[in-house]
Amino acid sequence: MSSSSLTPLPRVRVAVDCMGGDHGPAVTLAACRAFLAATPQADLLLVGTPEALAPAAHWPRVSIVHASETVLMDDPVEVALRRKRDSSMRVAINQLKVQDGAEPAAHVCVSAGNTGALMAVARYVLKTLDGIDRPAIATVMPNRRDGFTTVLDLGANVDCSAEHLLQFAVMGSALVAAVSGEADPSVGLLNIGEEAIKGSDTIKRAAELLREAAAKGHLNFHGNVEGDDIFKGTTDIIVCDGFVGNVALKTAEGLASMLGDMIRQEFTRTPFSKLAAVLAMPVLRRFKTRVDPRRLNGAALLGLRGLVFKSHGSADAFAFEQALTRAYDAARNRLLDRVHDRILDTLQALAAQPATDGPDDTAQAA
Amino acid sequence: MSSSSLTPLPRVRVAVDCMGGDHGPAVTLAACRAFLAATPQADLLLVGTPEALAPAAHWPRVSIVHASETVLMDDPVEVALRRKRDSSMRVAINQLKVQDGAEPAAHVCVSAGNTGALMAVARYVLKTLDGIDRPAIATVMPNRRDGFTTVLDLGANVDCSAEHLLQFAVMGSALVAAVSGEADPSVGLLNIGEEAIKGSDTIKRAAELLREAAAKGHLNFHGNVEGDDIFKGTTDIIVCDGFVGNVALKTAEGLASMLGDMIRQEFTRTPFSKLAAVLAMPVLRRFKTRVDPRRLNGAALLGLRGLVFKSHGSADAFAFEQALTRAYDAARNRLLDRVHDRILDTLQALAAQPATDGPDDTAQAA
Repeated sequence: MSSSSLTPLPRVRVAVDCMGGDHGPAVTLAACRAFLAATPQADLLLVGTPEALAPAAHWPRVSIVHASETVLMDDPVEVALRRKRDSSMRVAINQLKVQDGAEPAAHVCVSAGNTGALMAVARYVLKTLDGIDRPAIATVMPNRRDGFTTVLDLGANVDCSAEHLLQFAVMGSALVAAVSGEADPSVGLLNIGEEAIKGSDTIKRAAELLREAAAKGHLNFHGNVEGDDIFKGTTDIIVCDGFVGNVALKTAEGLASMLGDMIRQEFTRTPFSKLAAVLAMPVLRRFKTRVDPRRLNGAALLGLRGLVFKSHGSADAFAFEQALTRAYDAARNRLLDRVHDRILDTLQALAAQPATDGPDDTAQAA
Repeated sequence: MSSSSLTPLPRVRVAVDCMGGDHGPAVTLAACRAFLAATPQADLLLVGTPEALAPAAHWPRVSIVHASETVLMDDPVEVALRRKRDSSMRVAINQLKVQDGAEPAAHVCVSAGNTGALMAVARYVLKTLDGIDRPAIATVMPNRRDGFTTVLDLGANVDCSAEHLLQFAVMGSALVAAVSGEADPSVGLLNIGEEAIKGSDTIKRAAELLREAAAKGHLNFHGNVEGDDIFKGTTDIIVCDGFVGNVALKTAEGLASMLGDMIRQEFTRTPFSKLAAVLAMPVLRRFKTRVDPRRLNGAALLGLRGLVFKSHGSADAFAFEQALTRAYDAARNRLLDRVHDRILDTLQALAAQPATDGPDDTAQAA
């Protein structure tokens, strides 16, 4: 594939919405400082109010970009989109815009702001890539192979056509190829198994499209997978519609959190169990590190004419730094060009639709 | 509600497909023996081949019903439905049929056979209740309140209308009312949260129907919930379409299994961690008991003119016994009458559709 020969960027400029998330600058600035120390090839554009960014004014490899407003975690999409035009979120995304053919101010943008607002503003400011009807949200989940399964979409699209699922597969492949170096990552289509009716017509049609793309060498399609395959690591990528992906993600988060609390409760229930906890501490700590969801923070918004990464709103400095690193890695490995190239190649090969179709289809299926 | 005054059955007859599941009679007969000892008000109809059932021939409170064939775990639905007409699965379900107005031979049937076949055969033999378009599969998942959340549908229906989701809510309410004694259990509608687009049109319309039914006193509708609410125990019941429910269930199973294995790995990694494991054993064992999925084995097939419970195919004797107990409890508390009464009440109140509509709508939406 042409994009596999893309050379990494020598330096990467990351725009950071410093006001977003539950904790704002207290977390984002601490994370930026640690990230800068660990990542010498990165420069940061910190976006926020002058007061909030004052502590970072003289940091090396940092530019300050002022924004007078902040999108709150519970602001409706409309407020973020139409009223707060000078929000740190929007100004950070603005840094990705190519104007008059010049280099954009930043290669990638990171925000812990609310997902709905971030997707809407990013889509409005950046528009979608040629050949992409709808952007998608992709994240990684840990698996038994001590690796990660990339899952998309996670909530941007609730009713997906087979063509959308194909686009997600192509974008997910580009993402994994960019960050893991695996040239031909495998793709699974999330379906249900033995039960009465195996998948809807959309899923069946999507499987056909994916098989066709695989036959032409544009995807490594493994076939149908089920919910537990996320954690088995059966495939590098799992594609599904945003409703299903969101439910799977939230279900996994809820279960992990409940089990973690139950282990804690059992180890503090009696004096004996507290003693056992002390003795088992090194083992429990290693287990906790291994499954720490903060390490995997940073979801990619894919399919836009600019790279945007979304951090968990509740991220602490360690977690937000992981999102910065994830965004940096993707930008350095030219994820945007890879998605663009892969989509064009695949669509041209399939001749499923003209590759130069309008960039943004705002119609949502019922 | 009229059904809340239903008195429990004095004795319950349970038909058991002894040949189903990964282990067949080795597991099912052991479970039946333990169940009989623990449940004096139950009688069993054991269904299977003469050879397999020979050991149980002289057990008290047991009748033997012969069946010459067995539905295999990987048999396609068509084979179970059309070719193996004398399968233990089908013969067990046949025991629920009301013939010439007489009492059926059994009040409830339990099988560990493959889900697709079980649903198809049950639907074919029993037909759906008045007012139910499609039967659903309901199971319980553990929650933080040390209770259980009942989730349906889990895979019988991949494309559900708002009306189907309403029917699931009513059937789930009847199930929980029957087994927990809670007269008015709360219902949540599974949706996605803050993300770009909050739910599909079907979900929005379902929420309207559920609100309407709640306003008329026929449901305790809590509102939308998300995947993590399954484990928070936000509501007694969560309704969703079968595709989403199946993915949530499999995702949870996959994550729980991965985390369990990882704890085991960490506690056996070094001599020190093995020592820690010995000391922490009582605590770990209590944790394991608390989250043991075998305790929750036994999914209900709801909406049919007969009560069918499905055990996990891989169940051991302890797990299969739980499914028998769950089935027994439901039958004893007259779940079938409760579902029937609740559906009629709700549909009449909503006047959503004639309550005497055809019992079986075999058309599947695209």
